[in-house]
Amino acid sequence: MAPLLISSPQNPRIKHLMLLQQRSQQRRNEHRIVVEGAREIEHCKNAGFEIETVFYCPTLFDIDKLKGSYFEPIEVTPQVYEKIAYRGSTEGVIAIVEPRFLSLKDLELGDNPLIVVLEGVEKPGNIGAVLRSADAAQATAVVVCDPLTDLYNPNLIRSSLGAIFTVPCVACSSIECIKFLKENNIKILTAQLQDSELYYHTPMRGATAIVMGTESTGLTQAWREAATAHIRIPMRGELDSLNVSVSAAILLFEAVRQRE
Amino acid sequence: MAPLLISSPQNPRIKHLMLLQQRSQQRRNEHRIVVEGAREIEHCKNAGFEIETVFYCPTLFDIDKLKGSYFEPIEVTPQVYEKIAYRGSTEGVIAIVEPRFLSLKDLELGDNPLIVVLEGVEKPGNIGAVLRSADAAQATAVVVCDPLTDLYNPNLIRSSLGAIFTVPCVACSSIECIKFLKENNIKILTAQLQDSELYYHTPMRGATAIVMGTESTGLTQAWREAATAHIRIPMRGELDSLNVSVSAAILLFEAVRQRE
Repeated sequence: MAPLLISSPQNPRIKHLMLLQQRSQQRRNEHRIVVEGAREIEHCKNAGFEIETVFYCPTLFDIDKLKGSYFEPIEVTPQVYEKIAYRGSTEGVIAIVEPRFLSLKDLELGDNPLIVVLEGVEKPGNIGAVLRSADAAQATAVVVCDPLTDLYNPNLIRSSLGAIFTVPCVACSSIECIKFLKENNIKILTAQLQDSELYYHTPMRGATAIVMGTESTGLTQAWREAATAHIRIPMRGELDSLNVSVSAAILLFEAVRQRE
Repeated sequence: MAPLLISSPQNPRIKHLMLLQQRSQQRRNEHRIVVEGAREIEHCKNAGFEIETVFYCPTLFDIDKLKGSYFEPIEVTPQVYEKIAYRGSTEGVIAIVEPRFLSLKDLELGDNPLIVVLEGVEKPGNIGAVLRSADAAQATAVVVCDPLTDLYNPNLIRSSLGAIFTVPCVACSSIECIKFLKENNIKILTAQLQDSELYYHTPMRGATAIVMGTESTGLTQAWREAATAHIRIPMRGELDSLNVSVSAAILLFEAVRQRE
């Protein structure tokens, strides 16, 4: 059977897709998210997410690449695709997917967990970039505390290049997270300037959580008090902060180095 | 004498400012650049750049903060400021500045140089982010080889948070840069996957250049052949690359760690 072909941007299926892209409330209500891009959908599929619908433009994307999973394929014309493409990309494929929301107790901690915790980080792009580094460092999980964005925000998915699907990611409150880490004897290393030691002097071989706040306000008192150690990246120049995703990468890979 | 007050977005001084913001050709012809934001202008001033004109909105910015340097102050109304603000920021200050273009021979290498080289990196935002890490790591210089953007692109200045003024930055060809590094006995560590060793097994204590290409195509053959060692960051997850600014930060701070 030939797939449905949509040639009008006014088609209700297209309007519905765009609502899902643009509104987190809509995503929440329908329990559906939108994933754009060949690699991102591939990671999503490999991670066993349920792909419901795939909109694709056959001149840009070969739908056979997604062979082996079950979904409704919908062919769209280049004009329609241009309208729905979130990033002006030329990848030609966008999927509607059922999200998964993990909680802390779903995490498989393994022998020697390495967890990244982000508190109050606002920009989806920064969380996505941290996920990308967490994938490379094979971190156990990323926990986003008191999130100001939903985990499946299109900007977050995009900047993660799909790592949101490859790295277990949990949203919860700081209080829950602190309790969880303590119960599991996971060392809490908070990135902060005051009363801190240089990060590369800090042992990270055992079960470790690296905890970071926003560039502007840093971590809340609850985290500072819960910390096993306060760690800092030396700032030797004239600027006073690093981007949170850059800091996370530096700290994560120091853990990788120490654990080798 | 009260500063000039501009209340119309059609004012020729405003139109001229916007041309400089938008066109690299205009910046080149006039040998002038545009710097927006309080911190950025502060770094620019501290680094001894010549500030020519400062447009400011008195409800947002206190011009006395720039006391001690000589420039023409131009007061603008909030409506005019909104028109010229590049980032929709509320900082209220934009300056026209005389740029400096360093060449390799201007670099003060000191005892033990640590240089970052970027080849063919396209996105101004990535170069800016590398400069920010280079400032924090107190790198000797950032060299941008075969650049595809001008060093004073507004996006680059913005993403560097002003580090373009605090870190010596040179644009030149790869050939010139390789020659310079060899003549100065600076070890060339190229970030690449093939035939490489893990970066944290590579000594970075002596005079070192860390060389990185684009995420998509990597480094050219000239760099691969000129290398003292090929280094890689372990990619343990499912994604196949890190952002160039994240990679640069990981490598730079490993050098910082080893050199302490």
